[in-house]
Amino acid sequence: MVRAEDDSALDRAARAMAAAGVDALLVGPGADLRYLTGYHALPLERLTLLVARADGDHRLIVPRLERPRAEAAEPGVPLVDFAETDDPFKVAAAALGGLERGRLGVGDRLWSTFLLGLQDALPAAAWSRASAVTRELRMRKAPAEVDALRRAGAAIDRVHARVAGLLRPGRTESEVGRDIAELIVAEGHDDVRFVIVASGPNGASPHHETGARALAAGDAVVVDIGGSVDGYCSDSTRDYVIGAAPAGYADAHAALEAAQQAARAAARPGVTAESVDAAARDLLTAAGYGELFVHRTGHGIGLEEHEDPYIVAGNDLVLEPGMAFSIEPGVYARGRWGMRLEDIVVVTDGGCERLNTRDLAAVEVAA
Amino acid sequence: MVRAEDDSALDRAARAMAAAGVDALLVGPGADLRYLTGYHALPLERLTLLVARADGDHRLIVPRLERPRAEAAEPGVPLVDFAETDDPFKVAAAALGGLERGRLGVGDRLWSTFLLGLQDALPAAAWSRASAVTRELRMRKAPAEVDALRRAGAAIDRVHARVAGLLRPGRTESEVGRDIAELIVAEGHDDVRFVIVASGPNGASPHHETGARALAAGDAVVVDIGGSVDGYCSDSTRDYVIGAAPAGYADAHAALEAAQQAARAAARPGVTAESVDAAARDLLTAAGYGELFVHRTGHGIGLEEHEDPYIVAGNDLVLEPGMAFSIEPGVYARGRWGMRLEDIVVVTDGGCERLNTRDLAAVEVAA
Repeated sequence: MVRAEDDSALDRAARAMAAAGVDALLVGPGADLRYLTGYHALPLERLTLLVARADGDHRLIVPRLERPRAEAAEPGVPLVDFAETDDPFKVAAAALGGLERGRLGVGDRLWSTFLLGLQDALPAAAWSRASAVTRELRMRKAPAEVDALRRAGAAIDRVHARVAGLLRPGRTESEVGRDIAELIVAEGHDDVRFVIVASGPNGASPHHETGARALAAGDAVVVDIGGSVDGYCSDSTRDYVIGAAPAGYADAHAALEAAQQAARAAARPGVTAESVDAAARDLLTAAGYGELFVHRTGHGIGLEEHEDPYIVAGNDLVLEPGMAFSIEPGVYARGRWGMRLEDIVVVTDGGCERLNTRDLAAVEVAA
Repeated sequence: MVRAEDDSALDRAARAMAAAGVDALLVGPGADLRYLTGYHALPLERLTLLVARADGDHRLIVPRLERPRAEAAEPGVPLVDFAETDDPFKVAAAALGGLERGRLGVGDRLWSTFLLGLQDALPAAAWSRASAVTRELRMRKAPAEVDALRRAGAAIDRVHARVAGLLRPGRTESEVGRDIAELIVAEGHDDVRFVIVASGPNGASPHHETGARALAAGDAVVVDIGGSVDGYCSDSTRDYVIGAAPAGYADAHAALEAAQQAARAAARPGVTAESVDAAARDLLTAAGYGELFVHRTGHGIGLEEHEDPYIVAGNDLVLEPGMAFSIEPGVYARGRWGMRLEDIVVVTDGGCERLNTRDLAAVEVAA
């Protein structure tokens, strides 16, 4: 686990809470917990809950049988455990003593069964999203975090360098996907986060994963893959074509490459997130592909594959150095083919650094 | 995906809602959604939400770019999609027209960010857990579901048959874990759900996964593994010993085997879930190991690894045919060793059927 800075993330969270008028954060297993304490907790039906208070009186509530794992993570917070037959919401309410009418920020991914239990136990509290506080910390990456993202980006580039050799007519998407998953680990990731191999018409469904479809000559193939290094994610998409490209593909891909470059050129400190989206979208719209670019241009990345800042119309967040996000315009011709080009960038003092540096051209594979 | 019965799960859910006084269920990606519609949705920061109404006027709300995946699942519900810049909570509120003051059951694992958005959009509604309805359906497995669990159970037994050959002194838990993960797929699972290889003192942490610790002579090793077949999970634990067992281990394991058999003998229609827990616990307590049995005796299993019914003190649910759950007493000697014996059983008309049938004795491996 890469810690963001020398002073503790919990100290910074407590200051951010005080500034935001939030009295406590209630955070379950996931990226916020890992960021704040280093504890990589299992998502379980038993409650694990960090109570991080603006006054610094934090507690980490864990099921008794998770106590050894929690202690081993050295979370820097006093542990409170509960037995199988205890009511964990009473334990949480006790840790929130004095804040019964407080403003409580709930971890965005805490399961609703837990939020409903907390709302029952604390009926007079005011509830909001913890991310209003944690995003302000997590969105601005420290040098050690950028370094982890950089290593993950280099590792996924090495995987893409080997993908063309896996794409042979007759092989199924699933077979190729299994090979890619092995390469993601072999090239230096700690785990596989996702593998999309979307061939032919499947490429027009942006979140198609893999399936039984066999690759064939004339297929365009979208390969969108990622893993994590020291908890920080990679995520890069390249396009491959087996034999001759389908009708209309080459022109669209030229426009897509230009859109990707335009968005990257737009990404710098002081501009809004939506302006980066517009840079890609305006170019594709002018080229006649606007209707086929069905998603936002990008998403932040760090301990989560998708996190703030989102590069989307309506997001007037002003970019700052240390913000990391994807730039991934796509064009989707339903029933025929899809294409997407995705790199991760980090905003620098004067522009942005690409963490993925492979050529943007569609890679031609022999049929 | 195995559908539980010929009449639709949504039809049965609508009837169960009417009986429970719930006006609608709001279900995100996960097992409830898969059970009710067959749609295996991705957990995303964009809202996917099934609005299942007691009056039968259901809707499946999806982000526009997920629409192709959702349609391919043939969910049997009209789809409503929303664009990147739309407010999905307004779309959900519209699908709940007429129920603004209704009783709404929220999927237990829906992320809190979505529940908070729904609560903002529907401030006069009364909120509860969807599982109060869905557990009543999912807890009673149909024959096709039991068959999937049976196939998963047989597959994980075949993996355990090959585990002893992987446990050699000097190999790390992580290395063994990777081999087991491959075997889980090779022996017929569709995916790997979890792999616990907990050696020596790590065995005393019930949810230790795998780590860098190298196996050594004199180690007890807890191996708790599972995958899924057609969406339904396997989950079985056996104990292994490398060379000579540590002090006190053999006596404890004999008591554990007896406890496991006692709980299995107690599991039949008409008895409570807690009575099955007591059968194992009383025996271990009488043998002097009660304090070292730090968790409940079991959990239900199906589309989720852990689901209702929980086999725990305080749960007076009366068992019925078709209920499937683990029986997994354990003994944990902190700093020294752990042991756990886990089988899945399904309640039958006269008792229960074991879905895991390997011998309970600790498996001796050459040092």
